[in-house]
Amino acid sequence: MYTLLKTDGMAKRGRFETVHGTIETPVFMNVGTAGVIKGGISSMDLHDLKCQVELSNTYHLHVKTGDELIKQYGGLHKFMNWDKPILTDSGGFQVFSLSSLRKIKEEGVYFSSHVDGRKIFMGPEESMQIQSNLGSTIAMAFDECAKNPSTKEYIKDSVERTTRWLERCKTHLNKLNQQEDTINKNQMLFAINQGGVYNDIRIEHAKVISEMDLDGYAVGGLAVGESHEVMYDVLDHVVPYLPKAKPTYLMGVGTPINIVEAVARGVDFFDCVYPTRNGRHGHAYTSEGKINLLNKKFELDDKPMDETCSCPACRDYSRAYIRHLLKSKEALGPRLISMHNLYFYNTMMEDIREAIEKGEFEAYRKKINEIFS
Amino acid sequence: MYTLLKTDGMAKRGRFETVHGTIETPVFMNVGTAGVIKGGISSMDLHDLKCQVELSNTYHLHVKTGDELIKQYGGLHKFMNWDKPILTDSGGFQVFSLSSLRKIKEEGVYFSSHVDGRKIFMGPEESMQIQSNLGSTIAMAFDECAKNPSTKEYIKDSVERTTRWLERCKTHLNKLNQQEDTINKNQMLFAINQGGVYNDIRIEHAKVISEMDLDGYAVGGLAVGESHEVMYDVLDHVVPYLPKAKPTYLMGVGTPINIVEAVARGVDFFDCVYPTRNGRHGHAYTSEGKINLLNKKFELDDKPMDETCSCPACRDYSRAYIRHLLKSKEALGPRLISMHNLYFYNTMMEDIREAIEKGEFEAYRKKINEIFS
Repeated sequence: MYTLLKTDGMAKRGRFETVHGTIETPVFMNVGTAGVIKGGISSMDLHDLKCQVELSNTYHLHVKTGDELIKQYGGLHKFMNWDKPILTDSGGFQVFSLSSLRKIKEEGVYFSSHVDGRKIFMGPEESMQIQSNLGSTIAMAFDECAKNPSTKEYIKDSVERTTRWLERCKTHLNKLNQQEDTINKNQMLFAINQGGVYNDIRIEHAKVISEMDLDGYAVGGLAVGESHEVMYDVLDHVVPYLPKAKPTYLMGVGTPINIVEAVARGVDFFDCVYPTRNGRHGHAYTSEGKINLLNKKFELDDKPMDETCSCPACRDYSRAYIRHLLKSKEALGPRLISMHNLYFYNTMMEDIREAIEKGEFEAYRKKINEIFS
Repeated sequence: MYTLLKTDGMAKRGRFETVHGTIETPVFMNVGTAGVIKGGISSMDLHDLKCQVELSNTYHLHVKTGDELIKQYGGLHKFMNWDKPILTDSGGFQVFSLSSLRKIKEEGVYFSSHVDGRKIFMGPEESMQIQSNLGSTIAMAFDECAKNPSTKEYIKDSVERTTRWLERCKTHLNKLNQQEDTINKNQMLFAINQGGVYNDIRIEHAKVISEMDLDGYAVGGLAVGESHEVMYDVLDHVVPYLPKAKPTYLMGVGTPINIVEAVARGVDFFDCVYPTRNGRHGHAYTSEGKINLLNKKFELDDKPMDETCSCPACRDYSRAYIRHLLKSKEALGPRLISMHNLYFYNTMMEDIREAIEKGEFEAYRKKINEIFS
């Protein structure tokens, strides 16, 4: 399903076929935590913003609206009216970052909902069941995202358990994909490499999971507080041990610089809340760097956020007006900047793909580093 | 500039020519308090929602962003990128409803800003200056909107002062329209009829202001706590004394029933925050009445808010999804319902115009009364 079309150094230009359409990589997945992009952005808007893949959160949809309701409705694609690919994370990251009173056992994790304190159990089978109920295109394996820093001993045990959980995820998703009432019988599964900042554990884990023939491979447990240098170092060591003929996904990353640096190390799937979170706080990504639209110098500026941009927000609205919207706490402000930022990220990925095709990725990488540093 | 195309009973079907385009009446003006419709709706969206006139608030734009900044930018039309008509209210209503420590004198009103407590003076000249700075299509006269109930004696004095203020508004706007750097030299002025619930004062005032040859005539000081019956009774008595060959505007009104009842009494301009305020609270206007989308019965309902509606929200999203958005406190929920509600109101006005043209307004009035009572 994954075709490696071209490489430029370690950078991969790929094509990933799914039942919900083709994904051209490198790709940035647009994060819609609760089945919607924050900032008032609809699935129809996503088409205008060049979004290829929407990403939703298993944990949030399970704990709040309920995946069983969404299954009964006909699945997440129908629910949010989005016909292109959806990736759902496994819920693991939120279980470890949001919930309280966690108890990790071999069978899975016992925790309390961050919404109402309700006791919930989630293990590999439960995570697969929820993601199957949602009917996403790509399910993520249920893993432990250990906190940083953790001792090497703890990480070693945790990674071994994550491997055993991966086996169980694979077995259970295969079973679910064969059931009559399953929404997406072609649901794919990506494995997640863990190992904290210990490269030897990560490499060993990468080798083991590479043997297990998953549809794609993610590097997880990064962007959790370590420095960018450490993150790049992990990628330098681990990516070479992941299958080149499969998608390589760096979870939860990142800034434009992080993305080109990871592409340069062989990663071709990304997701991050920065474009929308920054949008809600008035920060726009532009071809001249990041700007803060609350800055007084923009109060009479009739230029669009980015003069080189053709997104719906830049086509029609000025920095001065958007600043006024932010200061007046009007919902249109965050919407316009979030739309622009997603368009910026999705267009940057387009440029990255073109640069790799032309063998000019190094120049593009350098340009992004210059703009944003 | 106003052509009365057709009447059906007292109902008027008119056409109002402005420098920013033609307004077909009866018309509902879409309220964008701070130069933007609440709920994340842009001026581009307004075109899709069949909006003819946007209404902005002098008080809010003066106290917060500043009308001088907007003038320097090139006016409100350029600021919000809207090329169709804009009506600005005079600020009077907000001075009397929002601000504190008011002191009403012959020259105008001394008050404290509700934002930062800053002392501000606003009289007829100041209101005209602000509206001229904004460059709206239609300016409203600066009036006193007396609280309900007030004694007849108070209302009598207040209305006489409002008449003297109207003279000053007219004189000052004429002067401003002749200045070189005025943004809209064709800015029009509507008078406001006052008089509380005292029909004799209102009628006397209507006669006086009708002689003054304004571009349009509003009935103000209604929908401030009196019953609908009292409001209709005032209209029954006052509208016959306002010029039929000018627009008749009922300020701040109202529900669909209020609107058809006022049209039946000769009103043809309306504005109200209901469509967007209700949108933010999960209430949608439909061809079968008002529905509360938070209702549990909608949790699996895959029908659009209104099955007969072709607005952008009903085209693409279901009641179940919108309910999920509201419950998840996602900005897209209020946006979708607000868009639908504005479309509903604007389409209702279209239907009212058609009904008057066909001489079938009574049947339409009856239908709206049946749906919403």
